[in-house]
Amino acid sequence: MMDLSLGQYNLVYNAFSFTIATMGAATIFFFLGRSQVSRDYKTAVTITGLVTLIACYHYVRIFDSWEAAYTVTNGTVKGSGGPDFNDAYRYVDWLLTVPLLMTELVLVMKLPTAESWAKGTRLGLLAALMVILGYPGEVATSFGVRWLFWVLAMVPFLIIVSDLFIGLRESIAKQPDNVRGLVNTARWLTVLSWAFYPLVFIFPMIGFSGSGAETAVQVGYTLADIISKVGLGLLVYVISVRKSEGQLASDAGSRLAAAE
Amino acid sequence: MMDLSLGQYNLVYNAFSFTIATMGAATIFFFLGRSQVSRDYKTAVTITGLVTLIACYHYVRIFDSWEAAYTVTNGTVKGSGGPDFNDAYRYVDWLLTVPLLMTELVLVMKLPTAESWAKGTRLGLLAALMVILGYPGEVATSFGVRWLFWVLAMVPFLIIVSDLFIGLRESIAKQPDNVRGLVNTARWLTVLSWAFYPLVFIFPMIGFSGSGAETAVQVGYTLADIISKVGLGLLVYVISVRKSEGQLASDAGSRLAAAE
Repeated sequence: MMDLSLGQYNLVYNAFSFTIATMGAATIFFFLGRSQVSRDYKTAVTITGLVTLIACYHYVRIFDSWEAAYTVTNGTVKGSGGPDFNDAYRYVDWLLTVPLLMTELVLVMKLPTAESWAKGTRLGLLAALMVILGYPGEVATSFGVRWLFWVLAMVPFLIIVSDLFIGLRESIAKQPDNVRGLVNTARWLTVLSWAFYPLVFIFPMIGFSGSGAETAVQVGYTLADIISKVGLGLLVYVISVRKSEGQLASDAGSRLAAAE
Repeated sequence: MMDLSLGQYNLVYNAFSFTIATMGAATIFFFLGRSQVSRDYKTAVTITGLVTLIACYHYVRIFDSWEAAYTVTNGTVKGSGGPDFNDAYRYVDWLLTVPLLMTELVLVMKLPTAESWAKGTRLGLLAALMVILGYPGEVATSFGVRWLFWVLAMVPFLIIVSDLFIGLRESIAKQPDNVRGLVNTARWLTVLSWAFYPLVFIFPMIGFSGSGAETAVQVGYTLADIISKVGLGLLVYVISVRKSEGQLASDAGSRLAAAE
């Protein structure tokens, strides 16, 4: 491990701890919030909470790995000589959570069942492929190999973007008035927050190097994880609550009409 | 780390452990209490529990950091030579919990949706800004820098106070009779307990120095955290229960009137 300044070490350390707290609190919020949405949206909200729970677990591991990789003695930070910081935790996390993020986005749109399965499976597999193709680049020492796998991972990413903007256009147009804007925001939040990862990935290749780059990469991925998981999750939750209200109101209305 | 007397070290140590127990118990109380409030107040009570949960997590970290920062040998306490006590945990905690405290206060007032969003967002952002501006002062070694950021952080604090007392005056006047007094108390409790933090912050600048000041700062922040989080949380919970009762009674009344 390269040496870091105490400030750099602490910034990453505190960013990881912040993320554990944020993901953990978000998980409880989503799981308790299940009781406030109708049956149709419970699975979307459950999956939203699973994403932040899985991330919370991985950030506990990431935090511990970061702490173990360095030794702080009288204000100086050096590699501990033990296991290096384990970058793979991030990829293992994404392999699970990124397909689940696609699933929650499809589920909250409440498409016809067959379409939901087809779109969910397709987007989920593309998302997993994207993460799998990114990993060999992340652990490569040569920039050539990093660029190669960056380009390969960008292919499924761009297909996902085109699916979200072209393939789902009609489905979004059919969303109820009170959530259409929010569903559109959720789509944009996904694309923009996901675009952050390939950008952070190329930091070392575009001249950011040394301990400053390592710090920027760790803080960058951490912020992107919070936005793409908790930010999207909150949107999915609000959309679910609003659609549930409409549904409950229309249920009550039809029951009233039937009674008259 | 400066040397502490054994009594000072133990006082802080036990205060932290006390706070873990208090925050943890409060969290379970609020989460279980969700079942005793109506749908309208569940989110307020959920957030109340999230605040104490996040604080409980941070006090576990704070406790561990305190223990690791010192070595106790034959009744003497010295810096351990490892990482210093991590003050940043407090600021990370506040960055999450202080905006959530504003949110629970706004939610329990049950304003019209648009007003709730507007006031919640405004107060939440001001609260986050206040915490962010405090941190550079907390870690500064010069009193000049400490005073500068103290003054800067006081600006959003005073805007929040004025929002709570002037901006929310009408909303408080419209609260049901059986909770108006309690909502007013919640407002006062927030302002008074929050005023404690800038006071503790200036301890070292007004002549408290050395190990006595360090002890007073740690115990002071800890007490302020308990009052502002658990104290306010209990008020929010009682207000939610009372308003739920009123609501259930009026629901039952209108159903009765419709049936006649």
